[in-house]
Amino acid sequence: MTRAWRCSRIASRHGTRWFASSARRREIRSIAELPSRIYPGFRETSNHDLLALQWPAPPRNILFVRKNDDAPVQDALNEYTRHVKSTYPDTNLIFEPDVAKQIHDAFDFPIYTVTEDETHVPYHEKVDLTTTLGGDGTILHAASLFATATSVPPVLSFSMGTLGFLGEWKFPDYKRAFRDVYVSGHPPSTPTDGGSGPTTTTTWPTSPSLRGKSMGPTRAARILMRNRLRIGIFSPTGARLPHEPPFAHPSQTQTQPPTPDNPHNEDIFALNEVLLHRGANPHLAHLTILIGNPPHHQRVLTTAIADGFLISTPTGSTAYSLSSGGSIVHPLVSSLLLTPICPRSLSFRPLVLPSNTPVTLRIEAANRGKEIEVSVDGVRRKQGLRAGMEVRVVGEEVRTPGTRDWRGGVPSIVRSGGVMAEGEDHWVGGLNGLLKFNYPFGEEG
Amino acid sequence: MTRAWRCSRIASRHGTRWFASSARRREIRSIAELPSRIYPGFRETSNHDLLALQWPAPPRNILFVRKNDDAPVQDALNEYTRHVKSTYPDTNLIFEPDVAKQIHDAFDFPIYTVTEDETHVPYHEKVDLTTTLGGDGTILHAASLFATATSVPPVLSFSMGTLGFLGEWKFPDYKRAFRDVYVSGHPPSTPTDGGSGPTTTTTWPTSPSLRGKSMGPTRAARILMRNRLRIGIFSPTGARLPHEPPFAHPSQTQTQPPTPDNPHNEDIFALNEVLLHRGANPHLAHLTILIGNPPHHQRVLTTAIADGFLISTPTGSTAYSLSSGGSIVHPLVSSLLLTPICPRSLSFRPLVLPSNTPVTLRIEAANRGKEIEVSVDGVRRKQGLRAGMEVRVVGEEVRTPGTRDWRGGVPSIVRSGGVMAEGEDHWVGGLNGLLKFNYPFGEEG
Amino acid sequence: MTRAWRCSRIASRHGTRWFASSARRREIRSIAELPSRIYPGFRETSNHDLLALQWPAPPRNILFVRKNDDAPVQDALNEYTRHVKSTYPDTNLIFEPDVAKQIHDAFDFPIYTVTEDETHVPYHEKVDLTTTLGGDGTILHAASLFATATSVPPVLSFSMGTLGFLGEWKFPDYKRAFRDVYVSGHPPSTPTDGGSGPTTTTTWPTSPSLRGKSMGPTRAARILMRNRLRIGIFSPTGARLPHEPPFAHPSQTQTQPPTPDNPHNEDIFALNEVLLHRGANPHLAHLTILIGNPPHHQRVLTTAIADGFLISTPTGSTAYSLSSGGSIVHPLVSSLLLTPICPRSLSFRPLVLPSNTPVTLRIEAANRGKEIEVSVDGVRRKQGLRAGMEVRVVGEEVRTPGTRDWRGGVPSIVRSGGVMAEGEDHWVGGLNGLLKFNYPFGEEG
Amino acid sequence: MTRAWRCSRIASRHGTRWFASSARRREIRSIAELPSRIYPGFRETSNHDLLALQWPAPPRNILFVRKNDDAPVQDALNEYTRHVKSTYPDTNLIFEPDVAKQIHDAFDFPIYTVTEDETHVPYHEKVDLTTTLGGDGTILHAASLFATATSVPPVLSFSMGTLGFLGEWKFPDYKRAFRDVYVSGHPPSTPTDGGSGPTTTTTWPTSPSLRGKSMGPTRAARILMRNRLRIGIFSPTGARLPHEPPFAHPSQTQTQPPTPDNPHNEDIFALNEVLLHRGANPHLAHLTILIGNPPHHQRVLTTAIADGFLISTPTGSTAYSLSSGGSIVHPLVSSLLLTPICPRSLSFRPLVLPSNTPVTLRIEAANRGKEIEVSVDGVRRKQGLRAGMEVRVVGEEVRTPGTRDWRGGVPSIVRSGGVMAEGEDHWVGGLNGLLKFNYPFGEEG
Repeated sequence: MTRAWRCSRIASRHGTRWFASSARRREIRSIAELPSRIYPGFRETSNHDLLALQWPAPPRNILFVRKNDDAPVQDALNEYTRHVKSTYPDTNLIFEPDVAKQIHDAFDFPIYTVTEDETHVPYHEKVDLTTTLGGDGTILHAASLFATATSVPPVLSFSMGTLGFLGEWKFPDYKRAFRDVYVSGHPPSTPTDGGSGPTTTTTWPTSPSLRGKSMGPTRAARILMRNRLRIGIFSPTGARLPHEPPFAHPSQTQTQPPTPDNPHNEDIFALNEVLLHRGANPHLAHLTILIGNPPHHQRVLTTAIADGFLISTPTGSTAYSLSSGGSIVHPLVSSLLLTPICPRSLSFRPLVLPSNTPVTLRIEAANRGKEIEVSVDGVRRKQGLRAGMEVRVVGEEVRTPGTRDWRGGVPSIVRSGGVMAEGEDHWVGGLNGLLKFNYPFGEEG
Repeated sequence: MTRAWRCSRIASRHGTRWFASSARRREIRSIAELPSRIYPGFRETSNHDLLALQWPAPPRNILFVRKNDDAPVQDALNEYTRHVKSTYPDTNLIFEPDVAKQIHDAFDFPIYTVTEDETHVPYHEKVDLTTTLGGDGTILHAASLFATATSVPPVLSFSMGTLGFLGEWKFPDYKRAFRDVYVSGHPPSTPTDGGSGPTTTTTWPTSPSLRGKSMGPTRAARILMRNRLRIGIFSPTGARLPHEPPFAHPSQTQTQPPTPDNPHNEDIFALNEVLLHRGANPHLAHLTILIGNPPHHQRVLTTAIADGFLISTPTGSTAYSLSSGGSIVHPLVSSLLLTPICPRSLSFRPLVLPSNTPVTLRIEAANRGKEIEVSVDGVRRKQGLRAGMEVRVVGEEVRTPGTRDWRGGVPSIVRSGGVMAEGEDHWVGGLNGLLKFNYPFGEEG
Repeated sequence: MTRAWRCSRIASRHGTRWFASSARRREIRSIAELPSRIYPGFRETSNHDLLALQWPAPPRNILFVRKNDDAPVQDALNEYTRHVKSTYPDTNLIFEPDVAKQIHDAFDFPIYTVTEDETHVPYHEKVDLTTTLGGDGTILHAASLFATATSVPPVLSFSMGTLGFLGEWKFPDYKRAFRDVYVSGHPPSTPTDGGSGPTTTTTWPTSPSLRGKSMGPTRAARILMRNRLRIGIFSPTGARLPHEPPFAHPSQTQTQPPTPDNPHNEDIFALNEVLLHRGANPHLAHLTILIGNPPHHQRVLTTAIADGFLISTPTGSTAYSLSSGGSIVHPLVSSLLLTPICPRSLSFRPLVLPSNTPVTLRIEAANRGKEIEVSVDGVRRKQGLRAGMEVRVVGEEVRTPGTRDWRGGVPSIVRSGGVMAEGEDHWVGGLNGLLKFNYPFGEEG
Repeated sequence: MTRAWRCSRIASRHGTRWFASSARRREIRSIAELPSRIYPGFRETSNHDLLALQWPAPPRNILFVRKNDDAPVQDALNEYTRHVKSTYPDTNLIFEPDVAKQIHDAFDFPIYTVTEDETHVPYHEKVDLTTTLGGDGTILHAASLFATATSVPPVLSFSMGTLGFLGEWKFPDYKRAFRDVYVSGHPPSTPTDGGSGPTTTTTWPTSPSLRGKSMGPTRAARILMRNRLRIGIFSPTGARLPHEPPFAHPSQTQTQPPTPDNPHNEDIFALNEVLLHRGANPHLAHLTILIGNPPHHQRVLTTAIADGFLISTPTGSTAYSLSSGGSIVHPLVSSLLLTPICPRSLSFRPLVLPSNTPVTLRIEAANRGKEIEVSVDGVRRKQGLRAGMEVRVVGEEVRTPGTRDWRGGVPSIVRSGGVMAEGEDHWVGGLNGLLKFNYPFGEEG
């Protein structure tokens, strides 16, 4: 790690030079120029359900994702980014291309985005921390930017309005929330802090706004590691089908199929769900559901007829699956949900399976040439699926087997402080507010 | 373990003497006379969802539980017990008191049961293996005989008719199934087998029917460890309320409350569910649901109005919870289900929580003096609950923390062999047959 | 009581004189002393779903039913009754016995109630108009006071708090609402009004508060005629079982079975539903459902197993049936709902049958001696039902066949005026407010 | 009627001439050549739920509709048509164009179909009786051929396999079933029968196979009059949008909007349902639901978000609506069902409204330019709906107001005879067989 560390410091110094160059103000640059990503650690806590975030060095490359077409959100984004850049000057601000184009004039420093030419670098090679302004949909979109990455940076999310299921912070708390995440894992009393000039930019700043705060591990940001689904699409002969944008760079869709020794490099990941649906076709979808590892350890669960089928994570249990009659599943129940949509069988109730269950959905010939639509986290694949094609799904592994290393998952920073005592569960606290279990219909006489 | 082991061998030798005594034929004896229970080990397998059963010595004390009032089941029981006693003469046959009284005349050897006098010994101190004839209800009843035990003996279940959700074997397979369980974990090639006289009764028999079979670990019986719920009932002041028969011996209901240093000795365990219900009272039940450890780490989920509330295991997800709109949860999803029954809120959908979530259901004063009924696995407590009383539930821990030792749970021997390949899931295989997801209603034109 | 009886009869003739007699203030009298009931007519309107109320003479005997144990409701009742008595001095105020005892001291005029001795006179022989203060539960209770009557007086209902499903008026509108009902159907310009002494009590008053108002038929109060269920309970031999209080006067429960020429005189009527339920018995109820007229024109629909079964009116579709998964049925859909409660069959969805369908629920022997509870509009019959007993239900006929005469049903006075244009449907207007179909769960990104 | 009657006789005589002309064998002719349609009467019966079919003269023009791509159905069709033509030689056999092309070689007489040129004559001007071979889907398709007709000929349906919800007859009963329908309403003892030569073709034949049968009114075929939905689609300005094929002849889609004095001539009718759905668009549909007559007597029920919304007839309650959680509604409950599909509101339960309720579904601007798909009885309109457009629906009137004349509806001939006693309800008899309410899941212990 030392070498990478040194390199990133150099890059960081280059970064500060940009500020001297007024010509480069308001510029949009490629994230390829940014220093490499810093990978945080995740430590188990006494509240064994949540993890503690530990940065080996301060995060620098911050991706801001906002809800579109919403003026108050844009105003909040302006305020938020100005605060971050002025308080933590070593940070680099990254935006999605459309947002960058729209707002870069407002800044007197360069901002970063992904470019769409041949120097394509995916977000997950550079982004240290993602922060969102919007609601659950914005978080979902931010997660989809990492749909091809096995390691997702932590996500700090804010909501302008009502809080969603995904544990957003209220926007007015943004200064404290960002600072707590920024310093999370910072050793509380490092004697050399502030003394050694050259390391200044690689350690946490000692600005007045941060000084004197208790920044020890006890204040570490709390992480809820949200499992995702790992999804592959296969031809009737078992060959892997290429993904489409936005899950693949346009240049990638014509690439060769993955080689046998790297069979999984084309899986994509979903935070909420994968959907197979009849789409605009008024005829119902005929699908066979198989459980177990293809091709030799599978067992047919059933062949069924429905508008569609959802495979969801617990995180997705409060989204489409809930509309379709699925149960509400706590994000820490290691599971995946198989929820039929308008099934033509009154007995096909939603199923909850262990997260490590390989599930295959195979398109049946009974669909008579009609294509079945497939969508991942609400993004529809333009090319539908035909008879014999399969979608193979399994819950993402969030721990390297046999170790205590966490990988995979979407590290979601949960609300803390104030009324929330140690060990309390923001999910429980928010659920009734969102769903109002305690509002009886009608009246009790 | 060594000492207990020796003792039980001695007891076992006494046991064989009983057979010489024709006077004791057809006798019903107390299980207090039986040698101590043999605790099996559970080894993880390459199919990491199921465990391999490993007896340190052959099981001796076999509890037979049958469905009541069913002549074909009784005939099957006669055939089954005769086969077991004649093939494995060291076994001792145990029955429930009513069954023992009804059938002891049919045997020319003594049988065992629990007595109802002051020498009460619970089943879980003696029974090595439980075997059931009936359906899911019979298994549930058998499990309830161990409702106060933290360690339940393995259960081998047979069905005469249609197979249920709980993975019964078909009765005609009983000889093979029993033998496989009996020898499970027997070292395949022990040189001393049959040679050393004194160990004869502590090792597996070498009868013709068993010889030559491959009895190595690869043939070990497969165990699905079914989690249970741990349930306590508390007064408004937080004092533990005594249980009633059948979960407590009649002599125990007047006992003192448990001492602080042994706070959990009165919890009972449910394989399917605990139910709180308005009962015959036409007014709805008002309950507050709290999440977290009482009294200081709890958070109110909601106060809600309903006919009742169920907390179920995944095993119970195909029982009452399914009737109430709950999802079907695979028994290996470590979770508990909170399912409202006819809630007066259209948004109160069934919840699936992590198994280790402490859930408290508190009776509200709004019930205006009406008692709320509480039932555990279908057995109703005669004394209902009044305002302020609480039912506290958490999923049973099935592993000693930090170790690989399995404890708790109901070790259910699953069907194997034949069409079931290694790693296949009997649950998946049986589910569609039971629920017929693939039977469309109406017709497709 | 005899003396009071005589006096009050005299008083009745000279009704206005009561007020002069201080001795008779604060007295509780029997409704037997009141003049006979006035039956209103119901005229079809251009909005052919609602009817226009037409009194042949001003209503006199007004039954006030209030929610219990609610101080604001009692205060409102005081204000309301004082207004009615002072503005319409010819009215007689009737209360339920408990209420009458509790509040008669507050009045300086006699009030009326049912007595519980042998001179029992049911409400439906005297009451011209019922008015309720409370919510849906209070209306339901008021309707149950007429559970044995084929003709129910109109009901004018007010709510103090949130409005329920049954179309209550807001309490602050009580003066206008009562007046509109009181004068409904009054010919707009009767020249003889006020002139002819002997007819004074049969025509409408001409007090200043009423004069000058447009009281013609166009202002008639709008009636939603709510169908009820007609319910009989029968022994295994087909003999009618007596009802229990409160649906029967205590003296009636030992009466002879009804004679063949008056077979229906013991049916009772439900505004919401009749429920058969396992009650506190943890075993499910086994019931056979038959459709058609017993004994010769019945057909078995099914024999099913469930916690219970509901037969509801459309009015009851927003009560228990909704909790059990039933659809919401508009009160003008002539139908009855058969809704299973937690059925042990995933295919048993709620059914909606024509209102004139005779439905029989028969207790099966499979209940093994356990009684099944039966409740009518939330009032449980103390004596449960045993194997072979039947509950026979059919929708009440609200029109004399072949005529335009309305009979049966609960004539419910619906909100009008203000924002409600002619022909608009208060049910539609209120439903979304009650159920909030437009509150999406979670967030839309 | 007399004149039309005479004309049709002449046409009929022309018809018989065709048979003499071998050149015209195997010919496909236009239904324009056929005599005019004969309209039956529908008489109320003592079983006031079903009607008795009464032909003023024998039906001649018989439309045969079969399930496609099903060899056994085609074999049955061959047998069935040969029987009809040989037993009732005056009948003219009509098929859909594709079927006619496929099978006309098999017949030695001409068959009829609709042509697609400018001489287009819709089926409903010629067809006396429709008969189907297939299942519910085939009946639905047959009904859609009359989607623009206010008067639909009776439908006699047969099923080769399992019976559906729509009351098919078993195919082996086809001879008796067809004869009963053919002679339904024939005066039982007309002295002139068989005597007057010229009237032969206008009266019922007296072939040996028919003679001696009791063909009086008591044997009349029983009709279940199934209500349909009346559907119009409107632009944001309230202009009527043209329909597309197959609900409009290709030449009609460019026609002028209907004139004010004939506003309804473009409504189409659905036997099952009209569906608005997001289609392949992953974003949910935003719709406002209004109740009442546009534009001045409407009231907003709600604005809601969902995958889609269904408005169904009771007949459609066992189709898509059932998959979406709707109740099962008896076809004689005069109602329409509003069933949300995967709504983003847990409180939006299916509604049942009076059949005469005008319901408008308006596309909201919140759909952001995405089109909403609309389908009628499973046939999707190619052009989706955009913001401001409306679908207006009301239950079809099946009786001319103020008269006993039946019009509208799909007259469905119900099974009779054998085990079905007078007054019994085939719907009840078939429902449990179709849905198996009495098959408990799991086991009862």
